[in-house]
Amino acid sequence: MNLERIRELAIETDSKLLMVVIDGLGGLPMRDGKTALEAAATPALDELAAQAECGLHVPVAPGITPGSGPAHLGVFGYDPLRYEVGRGVLSALGIGFDLQPGDVAVRGNFCTVDDSGVVTDRRAGRISTDEGAELCEVLSRISAPGAEVFVKPVKEYRFLLVLRGEGLSGALEDTDPQAAGKKPVAPRARREGADKTIESIRAFVEQARERLQGREPANMVLLRGFSQKPDWPRFPEVFRLRAAAIAGYPMYRGVARLLGMDVLETGSEMSEEVATLEQHWQDYDFFYLHFKPTDSAGEDGDFEKRVSLLETADKQVARAVALEPDVLVVTGDHSTPARMKSHSWHPVPLLIHSRYCRADGAQAFGERACAAGCLGGMLPARHIMPLAMAHARRLEKFGA
Amino acid sequence: MNLERIRELAIETDSKLLMVVIDGLGGLPMRDGKTALEAAATPALDELAAQAECGLHVPVAPGITPGSGPAHLGVFGYDPLRYEVGRGVLSALGIGFDLQPGDVAVRGNFCTVDDSGVVTDRRAGRISTDEGAELCEVLSRISAPGAEVFVKPVKEYRFLLVLRGEGLSGALEDTDPQAAGKKPVAPRARREGADKTIESIRAFVEQARERLQGREPANMVLLRGFSQKPDWPRFPEVFRLRAAAIAGYPMYRGVARLLGMDVLETGSEMSEEVATLEQHWQDYDFFYLHFKPTDSAGEDGDFEKRVSLLETADKQVARAVALEPDVLVVTGDHSTPARMKSHSWHPVPLLIHSRYCRADGAQAFGERACAAGCLGGMLPARHIMPLAMAHARRLEKFGA
Repeated sequence: MNLERIRELAIETDSKLLMVVIDGLGGLPMRDGKTALEAAATPALDELAAQAECGLHVPVAPGITPGSGPAHLGVFGYDPLRYEVGRGVLSALGIGFDLQPGDVAVRGNFCTVDDSGVVTDRRAGRISTDEGAELCEVLSRISAPGAEVFVKPVKEYRFLLVLRGEGLSGALEDTDPQAAGKKPVAPRARREGADKTIESIRAFVEQARERLQGREPANMVLLRGFSQKPDWPRFPEVFRLRAAAIAGYPMYRGVARLLGMDVLETGSEMSEEVATLEQHWQDYDFFYLHFKPTDSAGEDGDFEKRVSLLETADKQVARAVALEPDVLVVTGDHSTPARMKSHSWHPVPLLIHSRYCRADGAQAFGERACAAGCLGGMLPARHIMPLAMAHARRLEKFGA
Repeated sequence: MNLERIRELAIETDSKLLMVVIDGLGGLPMRDGKTALEAAATPALDELAAQAECGLHVPVAPGITPGSGPAHLGVFGYDPLRYEVGRGVLSALGIGFDLQPGDVAVRGNFCTVDDSGVVTDRRAGRISTDEGAELCEVLSRISAPGAEVFVKPVKEYRFLLVLRGEGLSGALEDTDPQAAGKKPVAPRARREGADKTIESIRAFVEQARERLQGREPANMVLLRGFSQKPDWPRFPEVFRLRAAAIAGYPMYRGVARLLGMDVLETGSEMSEEVATLEQHWQDYDFFYLHFKPTDSAGEDGDFEKRVSLLETADKQVARAVALEPDVLVVTGDHSTPARMKSHSWHPVPLLIHSRYCRADGAQAFGERACAAGCLGGMLPARHIMPLAMAHARRLEKFGA
């Protein structure tokens, strides 16, 4: 069911929905044939799962490993294959840059070029984050015709470039030649109407080359993922929910803001996030509560830390349960198996708890238990929100 | 697989298919943690399930509660999101009005307006069905330019208006302002080509106002859901099946007729319907047999009556099994949990029985048992007919 249809069926009631997203929740068996979630002692989640409808969801499509942006869009009901965020915009969200409508956001790399201008290292010898920040300062002083220029450090050799001005376009090709041994590509349009932006970018690149001269290994820039803030249906309007996001990390605050949720001030500890939830419980219909560290432990390959963090998450979920949401969704945005030290395509444990649940085969919250749940082992993530809305009695009947 | 593709693959054989639709079949646990279907003694259905392929189907989309029209379209293989029936047409089907191609069908409400023409009650104080019928008689005498007028009582303050004539259009906006305190909206077009129909409707509304003057609380009409009988692929042609519908209630006869099935005369008792099936067994390849009362008991919140009706249905299914259909499908159109006293979004138990079934985990016919079946817990309803056709050996190989 697409968002336009959902919007036609959505109604307002006084029910409250809480969606807890435990980042990188899904895993692979690693100790005694168990995943971190199966190995962790999670009495609150297990009790919920026993009463809830359970399953595993597929964030984007079978076999597809999602980035954090698309994965979150999926659990928020936006088909990530239809609602695609440009890479420049994702960079902006990732560092909490307050992107305005019309801004053009671009991913930048510092790189090394030789005397003839040929790229010899696309990552400028992976300079440190501090060096990168210093060079961003230098580039911030560039003035390009027709646009205000923002250059912000991301990490190591990576930075964010934002152009702000009237009539700019995101329809530009990358200047990154994608391989050493080639010169950076001159800015050119993907579609008509980008002339003004090309002029600004040409000036930026030219001045960047001048200002970085002699700063080897970071003596040039490559630009990718030109994009603008998308004009999508807003989450609070599609679902008719006063929606708040509670997330300590910029990327997730950014995605929530992109969809029109209110982003609440909070700390980066789970306990601080749940305190924020308790404090604002009366103010909203829908809360998105994000727990980050489980993903980081997966990326680090630290299985035991994941186990311990999941046990912490369980205690925090128990606090949230005490608020008695009418519908509680607990899931992850994607899997991050410690064995793989990276995001993966594996489906993600999911429970939907309300007073309208069917009994199913899942008596605990884990990968295998959820696979036996009535939501099945391959539920497209975009169905989670309509299901949660149904359990909240917030969708009218379709047809008579 | 869409209907155009199915039509290319369908072939005629001498196999017989029987689809039993037990209305509102799915439920929620209510007594001893069991649903009505799980609590009922249904030896025939359980024996079938043990031999059949089982699952749960999703009539429209996850989380979406379907009306009877869309739900039936789904089990007949028509994607309800693609094949959408107008509300006026559904009203006509609901009371068994024999809609002709080109007719414009409209949902009408009697309402109350004050001296200045402002709506004060959109439902005219919910007048009785008898009063409504009397007023429909009055409105039937209206003559509008360019169209024959039919006005038929539906229930209480609701009626059906049908215009019949050359060159009419269903592309009109509602005249219902959707809230008291506003005047009825003047008839206007949603698309070009509706001028003639607007003229007829304007005349109808004007004369209705005159004829209802002094008949408070029902002194005016509001019109919604202008629509025409759709020109869809016909079921007997898509599936190459001589198809008959056996249903005691007008709505279901209407949906079957809309798809081009023959509608057989029958009674409203399940036993009468099965007698009709026995009588016509040699005359058709496909039978749709509809059992209504399980849904009504759900709407009434009467769990024990649902249990008892399901036990009755079981006996009637046993009689049908004795006819030895090559393929027997038993399912519902949607769920109607007694706990919710309404249709719901919960997936619906399904069994497909033939000599070509895989063994699966479902050893009884119930919500939890079917969730363990090989058709899964979230099968889109539109896949049921292609599966049934396959089991009937009526679909050719796709590609070489």
